[in-house]
Amino acid sequence: MKVIVDLCVVPMGVGVSVSKYVAECQKVLQDAGLEHQLHAYGTNIEGDWDDVFAAIKHCHQRVHAMGAPRITTSIKVGTRTDRDQTMQDKIDSVTNGNL
Amino acid sequence: MKVIVDLCVVPMGVGVSVSKYVAECQKVLQDAGLEHQLHAYGTNIEGDWDDVFAAIKHCHQRVHAMGAPRITTSIKVGTRTDRDQTMQDKIDSVTNGNL
Amino acid sequence: MKVIVDLCVVPMGVGVSVSKYVAECQKVLQDAGLEHQLHAYGTNIEGDWDDVFAAIKHCHQRVHAMGAPRITTSIKVGTRTDRDQTMQDKIDSVTNGNL
Amino acid sequence: MKVIVDLCVVPMGVGVSVSKYVAECQKVLQDAGLEHQLHAYGTNIEGDWDDVFAAIKHCHQRVHAMGAPRITTSIKVGTRTDRDQTMQDKIDSVTNGNL
Repeated sequence: MKVIVDLCVVPMGVGVSVSKYVAECQKVLQDAGLEHQLHAYGTNIEGDWDDVFAAIKHCHQRVHAMGAPRITTSIKVGTRTDRDQTMQDKIDSVTNGNL
Repeated sequence: MKVIVDLCVVPMGVGVSVSKYVAECQKVLQDAGLEHQLHAYGTNIEGDWDDVFAAIKHCHQRVHAMGAPRITTSIKVGTRTDRDQTMQDKIDSVTNGNL
Repeated sequence: MKVIVDLCVVPMGVGVSVSKYVAECQKVLQDAGLEHQLHAYGTNIEGDWDDVFAAIKHCHQRVHAMGAPRITTSIKVGTRTDRDQTMQDKIDSVTNGNL
Repeated sequence: MKVIVDLCVVPMGVGVSVSKYVAECQKVLQDAGLEHQLHAYGTNIEGDWDDVFAAIKHCHQRVHAMGAPRITTSIKVGTRTDRDQTMQDKIDSVTNGNL
């Protein structure tokens, strides 16, 4: 099952700056070979359900290993059976009026 | 890795009433033997990472099988390495002032 | 416009335990006279759009005033024009099969 | 109070394709003069708390007026008192290692 995911990992108990943890999660996604695109409040990811969620679990493990005692993560997951759709298709459908 | 999750599954393309799909997801969680608690905008779930996410995938499969062509789901996931905490502990820490 | 909201306020840079900040937000909602129900990963709130969002802004102001330098909050907002629905109605429609 | 927001508006009861509603929300943000950036699972917005939330309310009103009987929206809201930060700053802090 193909998914488009939006991921926002928030380490807690590590102070106010969390970008090094987010950067580490980008590496995890990169190493997993998943299409992903960082934005100002999360990261869009595209791939097979199992691959994407394995990578998200890996992010939690890595961020804890870096010293964060607590993590709260927000995930949005989209699946559809009516047609294939990429992350770029979703953006194009809004900006180009391909409804 | 133990998780506390908040899950909100939104079937799209099936009209305005979605409660039968949500009820089906409750059955999936029940059948998986996971602690869960429905609220007005989602369901709290407690369990092992792999069990909880297997059940969430199962929810998507079941809701698609019921006829929903598209699903958008919101998930919050909490993990911590500093101590064990149940869903009830989280509520108690706020209401009883066990900070 | 009537809304049902799910609110989850996450103070950052204040250590791992955040329940006193969540408890303060409960007081803000209480003082605003809004129907609300705490759960293990947030709080359901019911009321008029402007009242609810004024209270959420107030929560941010109060949590900053308590010393949190950074806050990341997740909100789900539901509105509908087809019928009135309370938080309890939403739960009943799933548990009682009033689809 | 300055906010960085991530907004995802999901119209329900209007079929499987929702991009025309999302496009309308882009117009609302544009007309409000707010910095915003569409991504594959939402839109980042930057501005004053009151301006941003007025625009989000406006989105709900407009999407209902277009015929959607029900809307469920996800919002992430970030505020901080320690320093000014733009949407681009957040991305740069991850990609450039300005931790």
